[in-house]
Amino acid sequence: MQYRRLGRSGLQVSELSLGSWVTYHNQVDTGAAVEMLAAARDAGINFFDNAEAYALGKSEEIMGQAIKQLGWGRHTYVVSTKFYWGIDKSGTTVNYKDTLNRKYLMQAIDGSLKRFGLDEIDLVYCHRPDPHTPIEETVRAMSDMITQGKALYWGTSEWSADEIRAAWEIAERHHLHKPVMEQPQYHLFHRQRVEKEYARLYEDIGLGLTTWSPLASGLLTGKYRDGIPAGSRGALESMSWLREQLQEPQRNAAVGELATIAQELGCTLAQLAIAWINRNPRVSTVILGASKRSQLQDNLGALAVTPRLTPEVLARIDAITLPLAK
Amino acid sequence: MQYRRLGRSGLQVSELSLGSWVTYHNQVDTGAAVEMLAAARDAGINFFDNAEAYALGKSEEIMGQAIKQLGWGRHTYVVSTKFYWGIDKSGTTVNYKDTLNRKYLMQAIDGSLKRFGLDEIDLVYCHRPDPHTPIEETVRAMSDMITQGKALYWGTSEWSADEIRAAWEIAERHHLHKPVMEQPQYHLFHRQRVEKEYARLYEDIGLGLTTWSPLASGLLTGKYRDGIPAGSRGALESMSWLREQLQEPQRNAAVGELATIAQELGCTLAQLAIAWINRNPRVSTVILGASKRSQLQDNLGALAVTPRLTPEVLARIDAITLPLAK
Amino acid sequence: MQYRRLGRSGLQVSELSLGSWVTYHNQVDTGAAVEMLAAARDAGINFFDNAEAYALGKSEEIMGQAIKQLGWGRHTYVVSTKFYWGIDKSGTTVNYKDTLNRKYLMQAIDGSLKRFGLDEIDLVYCHRPDPHTPIEETVRAMSDMITQGKALYWGTSEWSADEIRAAWEIAERHHLHKPVMEQPQYHLFHRQRVEKEYARLYEDIGLGLTTWSPLASGLLTGKYRDGIPAGSRGALESMSWLREQLQEPQRNAAVGELATIAQELGCTLAQLAIAWINRNPRVSTVILGASKRSQLQDNLGALAVTPRLTPEVLARIDAITLPLAK
Amino acid sequence: MQYRRLGRSGLQVSELSLGSWVTYHNQVDTGAAVEMLAAARDAGINFFDNAEAYALGKSEEIMGQAIKQLGWGRHTYVVSTKFYWGIDKSGTTVNYKDTLNRKYLMQAIDGSLKRFGLDEIDLVYCHRPDPHTPIEETVRAMSDMITQGKALYWGTSEWSADEIRAAWEIAERHHLHKPVMEQPQYHLFHRQRVEKEYARLYEDIGLGLTTWSPLASGLLTGKYRDGIPAGSRGALESMSWLREQLQEPQRNAAVGELATIAQELGCTLAQLAIAWINRNPRVSTVILGASKRSQLQDNLGALAVTPRLTPEVLARIDAITLPLAK
Repeated sequence: MQYRRLGRSGLQVSELSLGSWVTYHNQVDTGAAVEMLAAARDAGINFFDNAEAYALGKSEEIMGQAIKQLGWGRHTYVVSTKFYWGIDKSGTTVNYKDTLNRKYLMQAIDGSLKRFGLDEIDLVYCHRPDPHTPIEETVRAMSDMITQGKALYWGTSEWSADEIRAAWEIAERHHLHKPVMEQPQYHLFHRQRVEKEYARLYEDIGLGLTTWSPLASGLLTGKYRDGIPAGSRGALESMSWLREQLQEPQRNAAVGELATIAQELGCTLAQLAIAWINRNPRVSTVILGASKRSQLQDNLGALAVTPRLTPEVLARIDAITLPLAK
Repeated sequence: MQYRRLGRSGLQVSELSLGSWVTYHNQVDTGAAVEMLAAARDAGINFFDNAEAYALGKSEEIMGQAIKQLGWGRHTYVVSTKFYWGIDKSGTTVNYKDTLNRKYLMQAIDGSLKRFGLDEIDLVYCHRPDPHTPIEETVRAMSDMITQGKALYWGTSEWSADEIRAAWEIAERHHLHKPVMEQPQYHLFHRQRVEKEYARLYEDIGLGLTTWSPLASGLLTGKYRDGIPAGSRGALESMSWLREQLQEPQRNAAVGELATIAQELGCTLAQLAIAWINRNPRVSTVILGASKRSQLQDNLGALAVTPRLTPEVLARIDAITLPLAK
Repeated sequence: MQYRRLGRSGLQVSELSLGSWVTYHNQVDTGAAVEMLAAARDAGINFFDNAEAYALGKSEEIMGQAIKQLGWGRHTYVVSTKFYWGIDKSGTTVNYKDTLNRKYLMQAIDGSLKRFGLDEIDLVYCHRPDPHTPIEETVRAMSDMITQGKALYWGTSEWSADEIRAAWEIAERHHLHKPVMEQPQYHLFHRQRVEKEYARLYEDIGLGLTTWSPLASGLLTGKYRDGIPAGSRGALESMSWLREQLQEPQRNAAVGELATIAQELGCTLAQLAIAWINRNPRVSTVILGASKRSQLQDNLGALAVTPRLTPEVLARIDAITLPLAK
Repeated sequence: MQYRRLGRSGLQVSELSLGSWVTYHNQVDTGAAVEMLAAARDAGINFFDNAEAYALGKSEEIMGQAIKQLGWGRHTYVVSTKFYWGIDKSGTTVNYKDTLNRKYLMQAIDGSLKRFGLDEIDLVYCHRPDPHTPIEETVRAMSDMITQGKALYWGTSEWSADEIRAAWEIAERHHLHKPVMEQPQYHLFHRQRVEKEYARLYEDIGLGLTTWSPLASGLLTGKYRDGIPAGSRGALESMSWLREQLQEPQRNAAVGELATIAQELGCTLAQLAIAWINRNPRVSTVILGASKRSQLQDNLGALAVTPRLTPEVLARIDAITLPLAK
């Protein structure tokens, strides 16, 4: 495992990291979390991604308990959380749902710290942009979290280049803590934003990337090429919104062609997909969505694949996927 | 109930909200407060206005106890307080009466937090302008409350446009938290400030309004058209200063003409008056002064009236009231 | 008693106030302090001056205990302290004696708060200028005390106009809390600094003055006209350094001429001297050095004398004292 | 013992001070530390240097316990610590080893305060430059430590002139606490950085110096002129990396020539070497590495030697050492 700076910041994250959206989404308990976290750490992973919204706060609780049980020194791991959707479902939700206003953010960080059982969260993200709150209000709240010692670095997730730059410039002008990283969706079929839209931000403001959905919700593993297998995520009732996308014929055909390349490189389709993201030096870390130990082990194999992605191989991959990518 | 942004801020308040000046002014206990707050919340109200001076701190205490009793999640409601008059009556009052100096403000917020039993107040207002304190001293104290985590947004009440802009510009120049809202008197007979004096502030600094006295102390309900009825607010000894104003003949005659319009629209006079304020998109919320559950229910009916205020109806209302309005 | 703004700040202090240098300097106990403070407050005094160095911290302790015993509301009085000389006498004194460096100041305010038994001191002064510490270092420390909530306003004592302006400009440029007041020596024989040197500061930065030594260590009471009386301050061994100054013949002769004016105005010499300071609108408060209740009562009589100081009387006083004044 | 300002700051340090790298490096206990600290203080030393990395935190613990045992008033001594190498050896060390990133620094200061048992550390240093963290990230973290009251002054150790100036300018532009001092290696054979590279910084930003290694790891005592004596530092297994350097023939020959000068001046070689550093007015304090009481007593004798370093003597010393110096 290698480590990369989170953008221009001094914080280093493992090139592969572990998410918890799938893992903890009502599917596992603390015991299972302990096992996954320990396996990930043994492999050199030091960043564990989380969010307030994952399992409505339960994901933060379980991760906090698991880390405590594992007895890790506070210096040795990086955890994140993200704010936007809110989790309190009582009363009028207008001020703590889909918002980045000061009231929500300042009350949300206190909730996260309590659930994690920590004194400070390493990375805090604005989980989505909020067109109904001035960016300055959000920047001030995120920066105040850091000044108050409740967080160490802040960033965004799925913000436009223009929104990210606005946040950075407002923070610079008012001498506040500036955003350091963005968490975008990034995989073979979703490249536009990371490769085109953000292009100037890497040099101009030193933006780091922690990317999510490396396997396009499983599409890139090839398991949906012949329909939705029983027991897969696409078969879950709560995931019905994903189904059409997972069965999209042209993309599944492309996955078939990628399988040939994977075979030639001696790796699985998932490893190829992850290695391809990892090859982009703008990516600080690829957040893996593995929910089982076996999947994690398979995914970690991607590290050995990255060096095999020669210019020729990359050109073949582009020829197959670029016409179908966003 | 609809929700509106508090000016350009990301905080959303219900278009109608509940005040406590009349309600708690030595007239009710916690039980009655619980009932009123619950009814308001059931109707979708999320903002509950208060001030240090209301019943000399007792109003904050009762509201704090009532909310605790109701078990509301902290995310789900917005409370305010206001500072200016001071409530300690011992010793030389020179520094904590009619002032916005730093000593008073920093000691007042601590008192309010204690009375409310909260960790932070959502909105804090300078209850009146203080010509004897530099605006910068007040801006720094209000901003420091927010930086210290004791308040979330700050604003003014009954300040001139010039004073509000000065506060905003000083905060901007020194990178402090800027004022977000103003609480002006605003009703059919008091329109000048909101509609003319503040006109440029809405666009220039994104000022939000939380308006008070929608019924002009009851004048607009029509109940003073035939003198002061026994049991009304105007009959209270402590309200004797209001009496002349409530019996002003020209305005009461105008109220009579408005009654005709209300009848045509199928609503009460109070509903017409409230709906008229609510029609102004610059108003973030109309603070209702209802002290009884039945009044609150009547007032809430205004929401259905606003859409009936066609340009023609508004023109007729203007013709009746504008010549008598400040 | 009238109240005046402390310079351009919003804080108001009584035109006469009570010092503690003489009072508590190893001469009185808490009981006597309670009596003096109560008498002063009854007369309308709201400002009680103090300093770390007075009786090496004992003066702060006694004042804190006395105020607690009197049960005064925190809003109702203003207390001060001052830092420069240091009171710890153990070890190498180089960093906490005659200094305004950050180490000394930040550790000194914590000591004062503990001795006073208060959460914040209203006014904190730099007791003297320190040519061996950059003014920026001192400004940052004083401002940080306010930001941390340990003090409310800060100022200087016996600083030159240039030093005061430098402190103000540094604070303005770095968006810090600016100095509000200066505590200079000011009496009939010591006028130059207040009347000439500071002249531009009153308008330019809104400087307020809390003046000390109104009676020139007793010289202006006339009691040293015939030598040092037994039992007077001038007779104390510890005050031997004052003796020559108190017996200066020309000044004592001038005091004799002032006695004639006092007699004409129907007041004591001390009352004339205090009234003369009080007549200067640049003075926010005259700090009285009374150590006995009877002296305090006499001094308070000065309030009635100020209006009798007509231009003609002032001209006669100038003719007598100006040639002998610094 | 004389005292010098730490650069342009208002803090004064004794011209000689006591380090703890050798003393506490697994060689002594609290009892021995008490003895050394007491002897140093008796001689007028007021600054005691330390670092997180010395004996992996143990050195801070022992110094904290010793000072507590000695009962010193907090005003009367200055202690330091330094951050860079990290001491937690569990897990992936990437973020707390050889770094000045925010995560490490903010978590390190809390550890140091705990080990020392103090409320604030007087001086905190960045122990080395970190090319992998933006200087702004480090400046903000160091400044935040001071704003939060956990430290009083910050500086650097072994940074280049360019890095120091960059840190100072970033702090000035963003209104943060600026670096005050640098801790460079400085002795007869290592002069370039202090005398040439930093030349403009003394006037431009008021840089102070606390220098380390006055005796070039013992080389300047002359004890390595005839090889590595048994029992010396150079004979320790853990110091084997030093051996070649300590036996360098040309430098040992030069030490022989210096011995003649020392003899003429009536002092030891160590005293001559320390006096030579002390003669440089840019040096705020020479940190002594003495690990035994007898060595400390010898080193303190250097104070009497400094005045004997006439221009002629200095020229002879330069002739001997300058050609061999870095």
